[in-house]
Amino acid sequence: MKILLIGASGTVGRAVAARLAHHQLITASRHDSDFPVDITDQTSIQRLFERTGPVDAIIATTGSLHFAPLAEMTPEQFGIGIASKLMGQVNLVLIGQHYLNEQGSITLTGGILSHDPIRQGSNASTVNAALEGFVRGAAIELGRQRRINLVSPDMLAESAGVYGSFFPGHAGVSGEHVAGAYVKSVEGAQTGQIYRLWGVTGHGA
Amino acid sequence: MKILLIGASGTVGRAVAARLAHHQLITASRHDSDFPVDITDQTSIQRLFERTGPVDAIIATTGSLHFAPLAEMTPEQFGIGIASKLMGQVNLVLIGQHYLNEQGSITLTGGILSHDPIRQGSNASTVNAALEGFVRGAAIELGRQRRINLVSPDMLAESAGVYGSFFPGHAGVSGEHVAGAYVKSVEGAQTGQIYRLWGVTGHGA
Repeated sequence: MKILLIGASGTVGRAVAARLAHHQLITASRHDSDFPVDITDQTSIQRLFERTGPVDAIIATTGSLHFAPLAEMTPEQFGIGIASKLMGQVNLVLIGQHYLNEQGSITLTGGILSHDPIRQGSNASTVNAALEGFVRGAAIELGRQRRINLVSPDMLAESAGVYGSFFPGHAGVSGEHVAGAYVKSVEGAQTGQIYRLWGVTGHGA
Repeated sequence: MKILLIGASGTVGRAVAARLAHHQLITASRHDSDFPVDITDQTSIQRLFERTGPVDAIIATTGSLHFAPLAEMTPEQFGIGIASKLMGQVNLVLIGQHYLNEQGSITLTGGILSHDPIRQGSNASTVNAALEGFVRGAAIELGRQRRINLVSPDMLAESAGVYGSFFPGHAGVSGEHVAGAYVKSVEGAQTGQIYRLWGVTGHGA
């Protein structure tokens, strides 16, 4: 399979790339020399797909969010997650669908805060939930046996040192563990699914 | 209670206004002569709250979406729902929280397509799901015993003549029926809830 992985330089992206190395894997990221892409810029996404040509799978493991107390959050700050992790991934689909082969798949990345909120996380809860709705909506319209799924990780275990205090009680999940869900999405046959890699400490939904 | 209702001219807004007429009700909408507001314009939202002053409840029954086949949807078209129904309501909260009294409530409007998608509905599925995540996230941070809930209606029965063919099999729910959920949110004590006014023909989630 010819697979385009956007966000290949991140913790999850590297783990996914390792698991899919037996495919023809094209890795793209913001500062990649061969396949640079800024997902907040439609023109940049369009250029990326013109360079790759048709693909059998599109995987996104990228996108920024803004964390701040609700009482201090401005519309501009809230817009960071909307423009990057949400519309960046949505636009990868809106543009990329025209380069996706029959029976191809798309796998996007959400996160546990969609249903299990934390302080300062309202932007993340919104964006991650939005991506779940988008995947459910897009899955019934893609056509030509093409599929779309979402991987929703808990806090990454690798990030616990930096972000652990924002996620009280979360055990975290390893990038290696999360990567399996992308393999399931790409090599399996399901569509419209949310793969929840949520830790063992309980969640509210 | 002093209640600000944004979107008072719509089918749901009128039904909600009727049910809350025993309160001090301020009704705002795009072309209202006393309280005009364009929710896609932060300055307009800010001006609205400067005119109302502190309130005990904020209700939004407004916001546009874009319906189109996924294969034809452009990022710009997708952005209509993001800027209006999603960020319009989010910005009502980000700005309005500073005018919301202790023990006050906010009630926003989502919709069934968050979980029960239809053709041409990917923008609606995204936006409605996003609002669910936002309400879950914001509820734990509002503070001062203030609350936020979401009302998620099925297709309105009153709209079946116009939109029924887009919602095959949906029985619809009346504006009168939906209005009860806003009363529950405003006069009750719950927070972080999604009130699902989903019809009797089954749904996927």
